[in-house]
Amino acid sequence: MVDNYARRQWDHELGAQTLTPIRPMTQRLNTWRELAGKEIAMHVGDVTDHDFLASVISETRPEAVVHFAEQRSAPYSMIDRKHAVSTQVNNVVGTLNLLFALQEFAPDCHLVKLGTMGEYGTPNIDIEEGYITIEHNGRKDHLPFPKQPGSFYHLSKVHDSHNIAFACRIWGLRATDLHQGVVYGTLTDETALDEALINRFDYDEVFGTVLNRFCVQAAVQHPLTVYGKGGQTRGYIDIRDTVRCIELACLNPAGRGECRVFNQFTEQFTVLQLAHMVQSVAKNMGLSVAIDHLPDPRVELEEHYYNAKHSRLADLGLKPHLLSDSLLDSLLNISVQYRDRIDQSLFMPQVNWRRHRNERKQSSPVAATV
Amino acid sequence: MVDNYARRQWDHELGAQTLTPIRPMTQRLNTWRELAGKEIAMHVGDVTDHDFLASVISETRPEAVVHFAEQRSAPYSMIDRKHAVSTQVNNVVGTLNLLFALQEFAPDCHLVKLGTMGEYGTPNIDIEEGYITIEHNGRKDHLPFPKQPGSFYHLSKVHDSHNIAFACRIWGLRATDLHQGVVYGTLTDETALDEALINRFDYDEVFGTVLNRFCVQAAVQHPLTVYGKGGQTRGYIDIRDTVRCIELACLNPAGRGECRVFNQFTEQFTVLQLAHMVQSVAKNMGLSVAIDHLPDPRVELEEHYYNAKHSRLADLGLKPHLLSDSLLDSLLNISVQYRDRIDQSLFMPQVNWRRHRNERKQSSPVAATV
Repeated sequence: MVDNYARRQWDHELGAQTLTPIRPMTQRLNTWRELAGKEIAMHVGDVTDHDFLASVISETRPEAVVHFAEQRSAPYSMIDRKHAVSTQVNNVVGTLNLLFALQEFAPDCHLVKLGTMGEYGTPNIDIEEGYITIEHNGRKDHLPFPKQPGSFYHLSKVHDSHNIAFACRIWGLRATDLHQGVVYGTLTDETALDEALINRFDYDEVFGTVLNRFCVQAAVQHPLTVYGKGGQTRGYIDIRDTVRCIELACLNPAGRGECRVFNQFTEQFTVLQLAHMVQSVAKNMGLSVAIDHLPDPRVELEEHYYNAKHSRLADLGLKPHLLSDSLLDSLLNISVQYRDRIDQSLFMPQVNWRRHRNERKQSSPVAATV
Repeated sequence: MVDNYARRQWDHELGAQTLTPIRPMTQRLNTWRELAGKEIAMHVGDVTDHDFLASVISETRPEAVVHFAEQRSAPYSMIDRKHAVSTQVNNVVGTLNLLFALQEFAPDCHLVKLGTMGEYGTPNIDIEEGYITIEHNGRKDHLPFPKQPGSFYHLSKVHDSHNIAFACRIWGLRATDLHQGVVYGTLTDETALDEALINRFDYDEVFGTVLNRFCVQAAVQHPLTVYGKGGQTRGYIDIRDTVRCIELACLNPAGRGECRVFNQFTEQFTVLQLAHMVQSVAKNMGLSVAIDHLPDPRVELEEHYYNAKHSRLADLGLKPHLLSDSLLDSLLNISVQYRDRIDQSLFMPQVNWRRHRNERKQSSPVAATV
């Protein structure tokens, strides 16, 4: 494992923290070693530091690299110019460094890269998995699916995708680009073994994903914050399926020179559908929550066609955990369990896509009274 | 005008120089003022320095910005990791800085950006101008044309194109992305007024474009260096038409929120066709030159379909200077005129796409004996 703890640093910057009390990495690794009897080697450093990354790759000569080492928040990238530039430089340079390190020290290694469904945007045609066969003026070709990303962060992923496809083509590297949907949930079988292994559960307006945020809002009976009409449709995936997809990709590597794209989600929902589902489950738990429609801080279609294919991971054996009342129950229960840590000042959007500079009001890192 | 003189610095790094003796910028500007009676304001600085660029934009509040401030050589970007990273960071960050500066200080300004036909690669369907209408499973959308760039440099242009389209969409900026073909020639009516105004004429393997290189090779009766079979087809344009296209774009600005793409070339040729044309014209001038097929240092198709549309600039009034024997005559004459400056050690490719690191043998900056 390689980490530079940037994610924890961004919490400090934003005055935010995960709902779940995440432990120091050394403690998590120790607990995992005690419970599972397995050692995870830790390399502390930054993938934008090529000397560091190359030394890790040359020492470990990995069979597969799972590359999640990127700034992953769209609103973070839209705060201002510095955040846009730092997101794109961090993500693009880290990935370039990894491609060069693989080519030099582990050219047979399988790169499993975290992309995003957000690379596609919301076209008015079906979204295929990475590539589309286009017939045009009597001729035909199988080409990269056109990308219409919706933030400087999503753009950085599109840049990565193009760079990775090129490296596979010229050097014969092998890669799987996982175009992941919105992840919800926090527990996997492994992390459930001990609270010291708990995952992050982000609900703030910058790093939180929408279903997590709705559950936390419901736990404190705060109105669910739907952006605009709420007709924005996206693909969603349970965190347990995310982990399984990575495993399936690693067990079934791409061929040399191949750059595969898997659309990694299991169900499509509109934001408003999710809000209604959370509202309904919360009601059964005695929590009465309203739904608020806020002006959409993003520039996006609030109603649109959306039909994205996602059969390739199922073909490899993915058995999805679909979003059901019982799962929503457990998400809400986690939110209630840690409600003392909820900071309601983190709920409302403070980053507006239409502005080139957003002054985020620093909230207190201390939990607000609920 | 904004310049950081990076292009001259790269000559020092590569041990190369332009065929034509380019003068210091201050001298060129002085000569232009004397001859044309017009002052070009000079701002020396780097567009990756946002404070500098923002101060220029806020002081000048331009109606249009013609953005050529990028590393423009594919082989340069393929030398090694450092050159790949520096090319992408330089080009992406410079363009992001410009987009933010325009949004803050000149949101109505028309951005005229130099892209490249190389963004498209060589698909097996007709290449449209930036966008393509795709019918798929009974639905239809007008989407960005799929991009398959062929070097880390070309990739940087694709990254720029996506970033610019996004900025137009969210902020209502106006942009024209000129997807330019391979430029040949050096003289325009303006630069022909005085030798002190002369343009660069690059013929080296890193920054030289193919037709320029063939003319210089013919002038010293060096075999023309065709990479592979020479069936690589590209769009080409006379430097006088390049300048006219920029003028036409500026005179006919994009609308607010619009990101237009113009394919900026006038004719398609294969590399081998160009070699034969140069060989034939050289023969008439008493120069006997052979054609050598070298192993292609690039990863590209050596024979392929290629049909790229280029009607939008013609619709605006472009009257192309087509490549004729008389133009080739004049290109060859320039090459003969400056033959004492030709360094033959710069002819042979030293950057191989298949290697992650290329050790370029520094040639002497002093002209070789011919």
